[in-house]
Amino acid sequence: MDTHIAPVTLEKAYRLINHGPTVLVSATHQGVDNVMAAAWCCALDFAPPKLTVVIDKATRTRELVEKSASFVIQVPTVAQLQLTHDVGTSSLLQEADKLERAGVELFHIDGYDAPFVAGCSAWLACRLIPEPHNQTTYDLFIGEVTGAWSDTRVFKDGHWHFEDASPELGSLHYIAGGHFYAIGAALEADTDK
Amino acid sequence: MDTHIAPVTLEKAYRLINHGPTVLVSATHQGVDNVMAAAWCCALDFAPPKLTVVIDKATRTRELVEKSASFVIQVPTVAQLQLTHDVGTSSLLQEADKLERAGVELFHIDGYDAPFVAGCSAWLACRLIPEPHNQTTYDLFIGEVTGAWSDTRVFKDGHWHFEDASPELGSLHYIAGGHFYAIGAALEADTDK
Repeated sequence: MDTHIAPVTLEKAYRLINHGPTVLVSATHQGVDNVMAAAWCCALDFAPPKLTVVIDKATRTRELVEKSASFVIQVPTVAQLQLTHDVGTSSLLQEADKLERAGVELFHIDGYDAPFVAGCSAWLACRLIPEPHNQTTYDLFIGEVTGAWSDTRVFKDGHWHFEDASPELGSLHYIAGGHFYAIGAALEADTDK
Repeated sequence: MDTHIAPVTLEKAYRLINHGPTVLVSATHQGVDNVMAAAWCCALDFAPPKLTVVIDKATRTRELVEKSASFVIQVPTVAQLQLTHDVGTSSLLQEADKLERAGVELFHIDGYDAPFVAGCSAWLACRLIPEPHNQTTYDLFIGEVTGAWSDTRVFKDGHWHFEDASPELGSLHYIAGGHFYAIGAALEADTDK
């Protein structure tokens, strides 16, 4: 595991995705690993931390999530722009070497089944909370976050530090086609008002 | 209505929130208007466009949404940083003049019940799709988008143009406390790869 990676307390885990980044979803089942991009992932609760993610019926990842009941949500970086686009547009169902072609490197953390994507800025290991109606009707999956980690060069002590980190560590915010935006400037509202 | 506001086709409406901005939720019932901030709002489907938004039981807005079955999701701008923070931290239950104090100006669009917040960059009028289990268990509300509009100075012809617009029109991405980030630089992945 990269020396920059450190655990994030579960009570601060929601902050890893609170700013609405496009994420990568990874899962494994019976020896098959997969990773897809998802722009539609969102925090759902603070304690225990939960999140939602929309996973289309056409994806191979969906079957892995449903069968293993676990997945990892990770926050890719500006340096992973092309990787994020590529795992979001190709499918393991058509391309058996999808992950290799996209340059995805996986690693594992003891105690967690699903694989983690190297080079991201944050990782949230999730246990699927089965909600068949949501899954069938809306492709909506709910996960409880059971472990969280960050690259301490950009998220440390419960806070993102995009403004002090390399721009390559910024988060990606997908629109459509090949169009993304990076996260931008830090702004502070007056909290004493 | 501001002369910069123009309708967005429903098939492109998801793009207004695809990059994960913090939004404002507005609703009205029996003469009571309210507006709250929500970082946990996410696209759910393309056609018809749907979205999810988490609305805590402690908010006054929740009751207005439940009773009127309609609400507006709007994308506030960097110029509305303090307004967004203020409507997210004060409650109409404690402060009857909440909206006035936060500087919220409302306007209406014919055919839609819920009020719209002036000065935002995008608006999505939604009809509540009742899902009592999600609402009760997760504070999770699903809306079908029935109308969408944008400020054409920053979203036009189905695309955001943050890179060419005034930085004051950028979207806000909330973390915690008074900390936000603005949307940043445009990035293009290679789509021919």
